[in-house]
Amino acid sequence: QIVHDVIAHFTPKVLAGKRILITAGPTFEAIDPVRGITNRSSGKMGYAIAQAAQEAGAQVTLISGPVALPTPRNVQRLDVQSAQQMLDAALTQSTTADIFIATAAVADWRPAQIAEHKIKKAEGESTPQLNFVENPDILASIARSTTAQSGRLYCVGFAAESDNLVEFASAKRKRKGIPLLVGNIGPNTFGQDDNILTIFDDSGHVELPRASKRELAKQLLQEIAKRLPKN
Amino acid sequence: QIVHDVIAHFTPKVLAGKRILITAGPTFEAIDPVRGITNRSSGKMGYAIAQAAQEAGAQVTLISGPVALPTPRNVQRLDVQSAQQMLDAALTQSTTADIFIATAAVADWRPAQIAEHKIKKAEGESTPQLNFVENPDILASIARSTTAQSGRLYCVGFAAESDNLVEFASAKRKRKGIPLLVGNIGPNTFGQDDNILTIFDDSGHVELPRASKRELAKQLLQEIAKRLPKN
Repeated sequence: QIVHDVIAHFTPKVLAGKRILITAGPTFEAIDPVRGITNRSSGKMGYAIAQAAQEAGAQVTLISGPVALPTPRNVQRLDVQSAQQMLDAALTQSTTADIFIATAAVADWRPAQIAEHKIKKAEGESTPQLNFVENPDILASIARSTTAQSGRLYCVGFAAESDNLVEFASAKRKRKGIPLLVGNIGPNTFGQDDNILTIFDDSGHVELPRASKRELAKQLLQEIAKRLPKN
Repeated sequence: QIVHDVIAHFTPKVLAGKRILITAGPTFEAIDPVRGITNRSSGKMGYAIAQAAQEAGAQVTLISGPVALPTPRNVQRLDVQSAQQMLDAALTQSTTADIFIATAAVADWRPAQIAEHKIKKAEGESTPQLNFVENPDILASIARSTTAQSGRLYCVGFAAESDNLVEFASAKRKRKGIPLLVGNIGPNTFGQDDNILTIFDDSGHVELPRASKRELAKQLLQEIAKRLPKN
């Protein structure tokens, strides 16, 4: 604790006075009262960014899916389960934010129906079939909002790919209409304490070499800070 | 730590010399390298039983799905993801066990195929459809094994229901062919630190009133100990 306070004291306050909204963790899309679809995101990257942003002087709100992580000090945390709940919270919170960083691994689809009772396994019966509907795109929704379009909200996305990172992440940045996108290889990072990040912007891409998520969070926030519109 | 040691010292060793095999947590059934189906089990009940069993003098092996819990002291822990992996580990370990307690919330079904690459969301394309195949029934498989059928292995099951607990749990105990089944209401307990258990055996059912999972674990082990075949 004391160590953290000392580190925080000597961290350059590159984000002093900024309000930062961060989404983190997986979403959980219910199938029935017991089961659901989720993904391997541990939330560690988003939580590391939230902590680093707070230490860099920002006022941080963290919208979190179900994770097993302690809330970073002096960070306001809102817990959600589904993509729809995360979108609702993000839309509300983003109107007063300067920077939005979407690290959450949001489910692209959710089951078309949520069963009210636990789906029972019955002897000899056929297995269930699951139909999906598309979830709202949180990052694209925020990026299209008046706050973002007016230049008051700087939007940063994350892409977790299993392969073809440069191709998929570049395309994703353009499709979402955001100035900065951070790519990483999902299966290499989920649950791990370190990672490699690749930052994509209008001028191309640059790699932040393998480091702890805590160190990468600081580097990423410096990259964001120097790209913020001057005003 | 010292407190735990003192508690352990004064705990009656009702399971001295017994080898106990416990499954705990959810399973994670992969859809692709990023996504999967899981459930709301936190693993807390199973971990509490593992710790209480160790304190009651047993030699404990814990087969665990993905959870965010520390391994109880002096407990051997084997980590698995899918139901098939959990079954494989349980079949191997059960041959030398005296008691098998299946607390894990095992997925009844898994996706029929695991996609090798992350399933992409493409503009305008239809949502995916997921077909399932039935998972092996771990508890029933162990209960049918030679070790259990010969009376050398005492099998205890868990049932998490969303409703109709007595009806569903009684039927489940008979279907699985086990002497003891512990029922609870899933949505009331998942992630919580306390619970209510209902114990079903040949003579009916009895409720262990709401208490911490740690306290319920001790009571349950006493119920098991007094039902063990004398030899």
